[in-house]
Amino acid sequence: MKKRVYVIGMGPGEPEMMCVKADRILRECDTIIGYTVYVNLLREAYPGKEFLTTPMTQEAKRCEMAFEEAAKGKKVAMVCSGDAGVYGMSGLMLEIGASYPEIEVEVVSGVTAALSGGAVLGAPLTHDFAVISLSDRLTPWDKIEKRLACAAEADFSICLYNPSSKGRPDYLKRACDILLQFLPEDRICGTVENIGRQGETAKLYTLGQLRDTEVNMFTTVFIGNSMTKEIGGRMVTPRGYRI
Amino acid sequence: MKKRVYVIGMGPGEPEMMCVKADRILRECDTIIGYTVYVNLLREAYPGKEFLTTPMTQEAKRCEMAFEEAAKGKKVAMVCSGDAGVYGMSGLMLEIGASYPEIEVEVVSGVTAALSGGAVLGAPLTHDFAVISLSDRLTPWDKIEKRLACAAEADFSICLYNPSSKGRPDYLKRACDILLQFLPEDRICGTVENIGRQGETAKLYTLGQLRDTEVNMFTTVFIGNSMTKEIGGRMVTPRGYRI
Repeated sequence: MKKRVYVIGMGPGEPEMMCVKADRILRECDTIIGYTVYVNLLREAYPGKEFLTTPMTQEAKRCEMAFEEAAKGKKVAMVCSGDAGVYGMSGLMLEIGASYPEIEVEVVSGVTAALSGGAVLGAPLTHDFAVISLSDRLTPWDKIEKRLACAAEADFSICLYNPSSKGRPDYLKRACDILLQFLPEDRICGTVENIGRQGETAKLYTLGQLRDTEVNMFTTVFIGNSMTKEIGGRMVTPRGYRI
Repeated sequence: MKKRVYVIGMGPGEPEMMCVKADRILRECDTIIGYTVYVNLLREAYPGKEFLTTPMTQEAKRCEMAFEEAAKGKKVAMVCSGDAGVYGMSGLMLEIGASYPEIEVEVVSGVTAALSGGAVLGAPLTHDFAVISLSDRLTPWDKIEKRLACAAEADFSICLYNPSSKGRPDYLKRACDILLQFLPEDRICGTVENIGRQGETAKLYTLGQLRDTEVNMFTTVFIGNSMTKEIGGRMVTPRGYRI
């Protein structure tokens, strides 16, 4: 059988929000590799495994470690939060995997924060939507600005990842200022902090209020489209069914 | 305890691609309600349940049935394919739920086709992306056109749902013609048919080739962004890590 590395989306954090398949592969594997913070969430649930971690900014090295361990004959799982394919490691694993043609890469999906956070808020993404990361670590800020403007012009519901960090506390404000060039101040928005983890908190805002709200790096932000409304404290984007 | 209805995303179809929590709730519930085709996928795995179905176009009636059964004291699960919040029933359930204030609606996430299909193709959505349905049953076509144009202009990776049906066999061609006003003919694209079901098939194309390709209603379509490339037969959108 061909050697194989699994790239696994572990969902928002709560073990029950992982896919049945992801859970099975983590039970079967020898080695679990990932970003230190995420791997630590798994140590208790998967005892007896070899755990390997690298800090942030060491992503390429982390991928090489995964392939090197698989080359030794181990069954290796690289884990990512959310889905492996949404700002996750599956792209880099396939790029680096080109140097390891004898090892196959299998991607196992997970629930990304747009979905798990949306479920907590209600149904913000029931219609067409765009997902944008505000992190400019790997993307020029003017590209992020352009995407925000186009998404607003298209009347997409928008989900923002990485809305803030210590080094860029004002990025959500800057993003809201761009959106406010196209969208009204009373557009319904929502945030979810610590999705599927202790301290999970959902809040609704207008876009004008959101502009002046401080969020942390564990927050996912949702901007409604022109049809989005608040129903009983939930954020709901109708699909258009007649009731 | 307050009465509660669950709205559950069952993922692409393969039972292993459901979340652990969704599986648990389906095992615990009394009644499973959904669109006939999806409910039939569950009959064997969840024996002894009461199964209720309505055909397409009866979505509002289906939601009312769910609340009526829950009002009788039953534990009710409304199922949707993929995620309950992405073109699923969670929005309509919350809208109709406003008439049943004594019943709480809990949304349980699942893996939507953008994620599960992306995993089959490789990593097409690793960077910012837009999700657009080509169905004009509930959305005016000119709004769909506008969203396609804005998504292309923003250099999003794009995932298209409902790219075709019997009544609109040429919608993918019409969508590609709009995208080709902004994107080059050799832009990398991919399709996945029957994700997580028998007959799963992934194919790569250029946008020019995709325009002249016939797909069916069980197909999800992916359009790469300006960085997307083909690596060993997989579709990969790099996030921008230095290798």
